[in-house]
Amino acid sequence: MLLANTNWNYPTAVWFGNGRINELVQACKELGIRNPLFITDEGLVKLDIVEKTLNVLRKEQLSFTVYSDVQGNPTGDNVENGVRHFNENKHDGVIAFGGGSAIDAAKTIAFMSGQSKSLWDFEDVGDNWTHANLAGIAPIIAIPTTAGTGSEVGRASVILDENLHSKKIIFHPKMLPGIVILDPELTIGLPPSITAWTGVDAMVHAIEAYCAPGYHPMAEGIAIEAIRIIAKYLPVAVKDGKNLEARGQMLVAAAMGATAFQKGLGSVHSVAHQLGAIYNKQHGLLNAIILPYALHQNKSAIEERMVYLSTVLGLKDQGTDAVIAYILALRKELAIPHTLKEIGITEDKAAEIGKMAYKDPSTPSNAKTVNARDLEQLFRAAVNGDIKEL
Amino acid sequence: MLLANTNWNYPTAVWFGNGRINELVQACKELGIRNPLFITDEGLVKLDIVEKTLNVLRKEQLSFTVYSDVQGNPTGDNVENGVRHFNENKHDGVIAFGGGSAIDAAKTIAFMSGQSKSLWDFEDVGDNWTHANLAGIAPIIAIPTTAGTGSEVGRASVILDENLHSKKIIFHPKMLPGIVILDPELTIGLPPSITAWTGVDAMVHAIEAYCAPGYHPMAEGIAIEAIRIIAKYLPVAVKDGKNLEARGQMLVAAAMGATAFQKGLGSVHSVAHQLGAIYNKQHGLLNAIILPYALHQNKSAIEERMVYLSTVLGLKDQGTDAVIAYILALRKELAIPHTLKEIGITEDKAAEIGKMAYKDPSTPSNAKTVNARDLEQLFRAAVNGDIKEL
Repeated sequence: MLLANTNWNYPTAVWFGNGRINELVQACKELGIRNPLFITDEGLVKLDIVEKTLNVLRKEQLSFTVYSDVQGNPTGDNVENGVRHFNENKHDGVIAFGGGSAIDAAKTIAFMSGQSKSLWDFEDVGDNWTHANLAGIAPIIAIPTTAGTGSEVGRASVILDENLHSKKIIFHPKMLPGIVILDPELTIGLPPSITAWTGVDAMVHAIEAYCAPGYHPMAEGIAIEAIRIIAKYLPVAVKDGKNLEARGQMLVAAAMGATAFQKGLGSVHSVAHQLGAIYNKQHGLLNAIILPYALHQNKSAIEERMVYLSTVLGLKDQGTDAVIAYILALRKELAIPHTLKEIGITEDKAAEIGKMAYKDPSTPSNAKTVNARDLEQLFRAAVNGDIKEL
Repeated sequence: MLLANTNWNYPTAVWFGNGRINELVQACKELGIRNPLFITDEGLVKLDIVEKTLNVLRKEQLSFTVYSDVQGNPTGDNVENGVRHFNENKHDGVIAFGGGSAIDAAKTIAFMSGQSKSLWDFEDVGDNWTHANLAGIAPIIAIPTTAGTGSEVGRASVILDENLHSKKIIFHPKMLPGIVILDPELTIGLPPSITAWTGVDAMVHAIEAYCAPGYHPMAEGIAIEAIRIIAKYLPVAVKDGKNLEARGQMLVAAAMGATAFQKGLGSVHSVAHQLGAIYNKQHGLLNAIILPYALHQNKSAIEERMVYLSTVLGLKDQGTDAVIAYILALRKELAIPHTLKEIGITEDKAAEIGKMAYKDPSTPSNAKTVNARDLEQLFRAAVNGDIKEL
């Protein structure tokens, strides 16, 4: 089935459809952007899809420059240099193009472009965000090229504080892009491994959001439907990268996962954020490995929800164990490792990781109340594979 | 379970929780409203909840006036008089308080307060809405006192054109209220009949949105979860009006139904809009009566979705017939009539109603393509009860 072009209005304006990238200049016009800074990452900038997108801008003679000094886990320096570049070239808006790293960096650059306070003053703690200068936030168009992070519909970015080896969440409601273009054709070149890791990342967003305590049925409805879509289409997208229906469904499901997680995330992210900062591993891959161990640890708090999720997924058995078995099988099908050990992470820093993870902003919204010791145990289980492999 | 206070951010800012009405002045401040026009309907204005709410404003010495010349199916005159009242008293914002009629009228008054064109110029046809003066739209706070319409999270209003005996949809994206207060305590006084009618209205929104063609998985996820919540809590709210959990769940589900129907509605609404205009019957009651006949008529187009919905609802059988049987049983439990005949509507104007319903903006998004003849037949079936009653 070819998915038709459609526009949606929540959580922001979303333009979905194959070839919608050709409407990029129209999007700039709608947000009043005349001189955008195009931000992507250092790997992506060499690919055809970037050139093709820049040609859309050139064809309509829109002035722009490119900033691609963005690393896999973007750093405070990446942001500061980007802000300097933005202001030196008198840009008036940002086009965020890429995976989670590029989009997170781009949103933060747009946000910081007109602030007098420094970046870390806006860490997502207390009411820090209320001290921002609203007029100093540049408009943002976000164009994801992976289906996972969902950063394009999020109001926060994860930025690495290199001095502290710690990932910080920078939050402001106006970091939500004004227009999101979801063009499945931009994702068909993604290799199977990245497709799989980012796809499970989206599933982790949806599962952790669904399981987070708090009352937000709209988020839960979105999360459940996202999980159902990912279960159906992720294996197809990994096996047949050119399948535009599967690519489109995954792009949408990823946006849904991130929309849902306004409700909160959980211990998978608490631990993964630390490992990303210390070991510089891909975020989705870390989440994908940790997920089943976290479900196991949270079992007593999520059983009722997992019974319903089993029904939605059409599993033979019902409950947390059934969902874990399903996840383990899916991971195997997608060639995702079973343990952190297999990607070179050892238990050496387990105590430290437990303590850092406990302070992560995702921890308070975990389904079950956990302490640093619990998170250390979760990490050790994921290193060693302390759960029955199928 | 006591549902805790929470704030959400899509499709707009939603403040949920018991007693949140006490934050009304804070809501005015956030939207920059210093002199609100409080709009409700002619029945509601006599009730305690209005007085209690006005006291919240008085306590903090916010100046305001009240406009309550709003009928059950609000008319163009109700809107025009409201606009005059708004401008004569130099108001700078609107508090929309009540059921769908009051909120629809209030949103339209806020929208029209600074327009030079006339009301019917903004009927939801083509790109009419793009001709509005953006600066002339006053900010809106919406506070529903029924759980059904969901107008508080919608970008349109239904207004009766008395000259044509026709309901028109007035649409503008900025008619979406800036802040919505969902306070379950405001709904505990609703009698069982209105609770039932408005509650099934919310379910009809969710079902028609779920079945509408078009690709909008976020809307579908929200719709399915809304249906599940309504199935569980509507019978409780009808039997025990003081049950705050059930009242709260219904308020949220109603907002979800309306959020979902940005995807589209269908033939239930196409016909109900005409009957509301001609016979001045309650909108939710009309929808509740027509629903099963429409599901029956749409069966060939919705069977796959009804199979999934049966699973979600935990029905013994699966498919459209199973859902129809469930709806018939629910209606019986809620003392909702089986036929339009029972509420005094006859077949006299069937041909005319079919033709008018065909032109209704809900018709193109019906699950199955229908013509005027099909809608006439749907109407006749609902008058006569041409479906097996349980």
